[in-house]
Order: sequence, then structure tokens, then C-alpha cells
Amino acid sequence: MRLGVDVGGTTVKVGFIDNYKIVDRLVVETKKETLFQDVCEKVLAYAKEKNYKIDGIGVGLPGHVVGTLIDKLPNVGIENYDIKPVFNKYFPDAKVYATNDANAAALGELLADDSKTKSAYMLTLGTGVGGGLVIDGRVRDGSHSNCGEVGHMFVDYVHNYKCSCGLNGCLETIASATGIVRLAKQYYNAFETKIKKEMSAKDVLDAAKENDPLGLFVLDVVADALGRAISIIELAVDVDVFYIGGGVSNAGDILIDKITSYYKRYAHYAIKDVSIKRAKIGNDAGMLGAAYLW
Amino acid sequence: MRLGVDVGGTTVKVGFIDNYKIVDRLVVETKKETLFQDVCEKVLAYAKEKNYKIDGIGVGLPGHVVGTLIDKLPNVGIENYDIKPVFNKYFPDAKVYATNDANAAALGELLADDSKTKSAYMLTLGTGVGGGLVIDGRVRDGSHSNCGEVGHMFVDYVHNYKCSCGLNGCLETIASATGIVRLAKQYYNAFETKIKKEMSAKDVLDAAKENDPLGLFVLDVVADALGRAISIIELAVDVDVFYIGGGVSNAGDILIDKITSYYKRYAHYAIKDVSIKRAKIGNDAGMLGAAYLW
Repeated sequence: MRLGVDVGGTTVKVGFIDNYKIVDRLVVETKKETLFQDVCEKVLAYAKEKNYKIDGIGVGLPGHVVGTLIDKLPNVGIENYDIKPVFNKYFPDAKVYATNDANAAALGELLADDSKTKSAYMLTLGTGVGGGLVIDGRVRDGSHSNCGEVGHMFVDYVHNYKCSCGLNGCLETIASATGIVRLAKQYYNAFETKIKKEMSAKDVLDAAKENDPLGLFVLDVVADALGRAISIIELAVDVDVFYIGGGVSNAGDILIDKITSYYKRYAHYAIKDVSIKRAKIGNDAGMLGAAYLW
Repeated sequence: MRLGVDVGGTTVKVGFIDNYKIVDRLVVETKKETLFQDVCEKVLAYAKEKNYKIDGIGVGLPGHVVGTLIDKLPNVGIENYDIKPVFNKYFPDAKVYATNDANAAALGELLADDSKTKSAYMLTLGTGVGGGLVIDGRVRDGSHSNCGEVGHMFVDYVHNYKCSCGLNGCLETIASATGIVRLAKQYYNAFETKIKKEMSAKDVLDAAKENDPLGLFVLDVVADALGRAISIIELAVDVDVFYIGGGVSNAGDILIDKITSYYKRYAHYAIKDVSIKRAKIGNDAGMLGAAYLW
């Protein structure tokens, strides 16, 4: 049995995985000081009780990871920490692998996809924009373990907002929850709208689904930026499918359809046929993908 | 011994390759009707004379190729043609592989590189702009055999020139020989210059090397577009190194230095350290890379 671990800022989700299915789960609170010990102890006790044999452990981590070495997890507060020794202390015979959480989610979505998909890019639209790349069924961490950081690709020369990374016009300044609220505020007086002045990204997206003019306008700007970004990423790496995940993707079909429409406008003629899909398994993708890093 | 074949619009270059070295060569005229037969007959006769045993054949082709099937070679005039049967007719026991010529060149440059480079992107700046991707020592053709078509990534929103592909603002509209001449003509009256009014890209680049104001300006615009493009590609795929090849790269250090400088300005902080190098083995890269597709 494989263990897929998805480390988040408030909880760690653990999946017990057999033949590409999550057959059992645990949730462990994220405590900076004892995070991996806590996970190991709970899993060990639970596996003993259930008579689960753990052959290997894959971990998706919210930050920069090189092999099994955590460089930095900004939202957790862990730096320069190798997870292999602690897992192998509790599970001496288990393989231990790690990657960035966006990469793990990309692989998870690919494994859960019906089609014969081998290569995929996943874009996670949350507070920021993350990305993960799977090539021929293997996660690509990249030569500097930075593969997938497409939230910081330059794509918006119209608003050219300053990004938290210091650059301007990054995809993340538009296609994240933060970007959506900023856009709605900037254009608030330009449209009739039922959206309240202090809004969340969800308010804007919900309004768009009900044809609110401001909501629709913002969704259009977001889809435009994503269509442009995907048209560029696809030229660079040519995958079968793009998965759109994260909170913003809850906007659903209206978002996916608009992204696809802008993609077709911006894409070179040779790459028009790529598939753009909403991520399907959501919060489970990180666990499932992490469990198939090897 | 491996055979590396680089098919061009006027000649086919054939390399006899042993242990990553081109030990012998043949050049065959590109005749649309009998191209692969001509190559096979000449190679077979020559190999017999020299007592070379050919174990495998790799072919780099200037167009869209799926496996060993040519979809279209626009400059040669061949469509929908599988090269495997003809090579295997003359060399029944040889493996036969094919890829796009830009991909073959990318692998060739990587193999000729001193460093322990595993993954690389090559940009070929000629009449147009081509690209090739090597990941972990293997060429990536891509899910639709379009990987590397980065000449058509949107990067220039200032001039936003129409590209031959039908889109606007493609990298190729700026960073190709064609783009260089167009830029020099557009800005001709804005600078003092010794460049003659009917110029080639080489004239512009040569003038830049001699500090001609118009030449330097054009080189700067070209380097800016390439720096921007590389900063985006690197986020998407995270390779060790970018090789800059093709006729435009003969501008040399002045171009590479300017690209690197713009790259560092546009790149997200996590990816600043990628290496940008001038392609080293030029016309041999296609043969060498083609011979190591397997």
C-alpha cells in the first residue's frame, strides 16, 4: 500500500492508496514543530490497527523542495529540512519521495482522468496561481525544482499590476482570487452590478454565473489571461491536457468555456486541439499524485 | 556506428557517429522526389567502401513529424510520408528514429556541452524562430509533436507585428532575421546609422558590433524579446540551460550578454540562475542529436 501525503498550512491530509484508489484517510493538524513526527506516529498507529503495510510514501509540499529536502515552506514555516530520515525512522523499509504540491496535484488529476492522458499541465487558481507539469506520467520538478511556477509568467500588459514577487503583469495578478477582487474593485464604477463593494472572489464569480455585468467582465479578463498563458505554455512543452483547479475553478463551465475560447484565439494553428478541463478530484489530487511519484 | 541525418531545404547532411563524435560525413543534394532513396544509396555504398556497420539511423526533419511519419516539410515539399520503410529497405537491421530538426539540434548541443547538462531548450534564430526541448537527455516531441514552436509565443505587445502564422506579436516577428530587417527599416530615420537602406539582418548585427546606434537599438529590442520569452519558458519547464543558435546568434557575445541582462530583469527570483549560452557546434548539432534519439 502507498501513502500519499498532502501538506497544507492548516492540515496534513494522508491517503492510504491501493491500485490508484484512496481506500482510507487520516487528517493531521499542521504543527510546525512536530509536523512530520505527528504524521508518522498517527499513520503508524492507524496502519497497525488496520493491518496496512506501507511500501512507499510520497509527500506533496507547499513550497520549494529539492528531492526530499525542503528548501522553504513559507506558509508552514519549515526550512532546510530533509523529510526522508524522519519517515524512514518510523517506516524503515518504505521508499520516500517528495515534490511540490502543485506537481503532486497535476499527477493526481492525470491519474484520475478517463482518457489515455500521458502529459498534462495543471494550473491551480487560489490565493495565488500555481502550476505543475507531468510528462509521460512522471512529475517534472525541473532542473532547479521550479518547474510549474507559471503564476509568475508575464501575460498582462494592460493592467500590468505589481505582483507579490516584485515583477509586474504576472498571471497571478489577474487569475488568482486576489486578482479577481482587485479587478472587481478597479472596474466597480464602470458597470452596473449587484456585487457588494467589499467582495470576495467567490462573490464575483457567483455574480458572473448570474450574468452580473461586472462579474462577467472580470471573468472575461481572467479567462483572457489564462487563455494567453496556456497558448504559450503549450508551445513550450506540448502536453495533452490542461487541468484548471483551485478555488477560482469553482466558477465551473462558464470559466472553462471562456478560457478555451480565448485559448483558441491566441493559440498557434498547430496547437489548437489541446484539451482544457476543470480539475476533477480537487482536494484528493495531491494525495493521489504524491503516492505515484515513483 | 550511428547515422545522424539532418535534412535541409538544399542539402542533406549525413554524419557517421561513434561515441558522440562525428567521424565521417556525406552531403547529399535535397531532391524532393528521391530524397531518402538518394541518402540510403549513397550511405550504403559509402559504408560498404569504408566497412562501416550502421546500427541505427536518426533523422532530423524541417517540419512536423510524428514518430517516423512526416506530416509536412514545407520547404522540401514532402507530405504524409513514413521514412522507416525506405531506411529499413536499405538497412534492414537498423533502428530508425526521427524528430523535428530543432529538437535534434537541441540534443546535439546538449551532448556537445561540457557541463553536466541534462535538460535544455534551444532557440534557433534564422529566417524564423524555432525551438527544441531536451528533458533528462531525451528529446521531447510533445503530445502533438509540436513541442518547441516557441517562435509563435506572444511576447511583443509594443510593435505587435503580424506574423506569417496569422497571429500578432509572436517572438518570431522580432527575434528572426526577418524581424531584424523589419525593425531596422521601421526605425531607420530615428537614428544616425551607417547601415545601408536595403540591409540584411547580418548588416544590422555587424553594425551593432561596431556600436552603430540603429544596430544597437535593434539588437536591444531583439534581446528584450528573447529575455522575456526565456523568462516565461523557464517557468513553464525549468531546464538547466538555453542555447541560442541560428544565423542571428552569429552576433555573438553582445547578443548573449544583452539577452541575459533582459532575462535577469524579467525572470522570477527563483529562476534567475539559468544559463544562456550561444550554441557551440552549429551545423553539426542536427546530425549529432539525431543520432542519439534512442
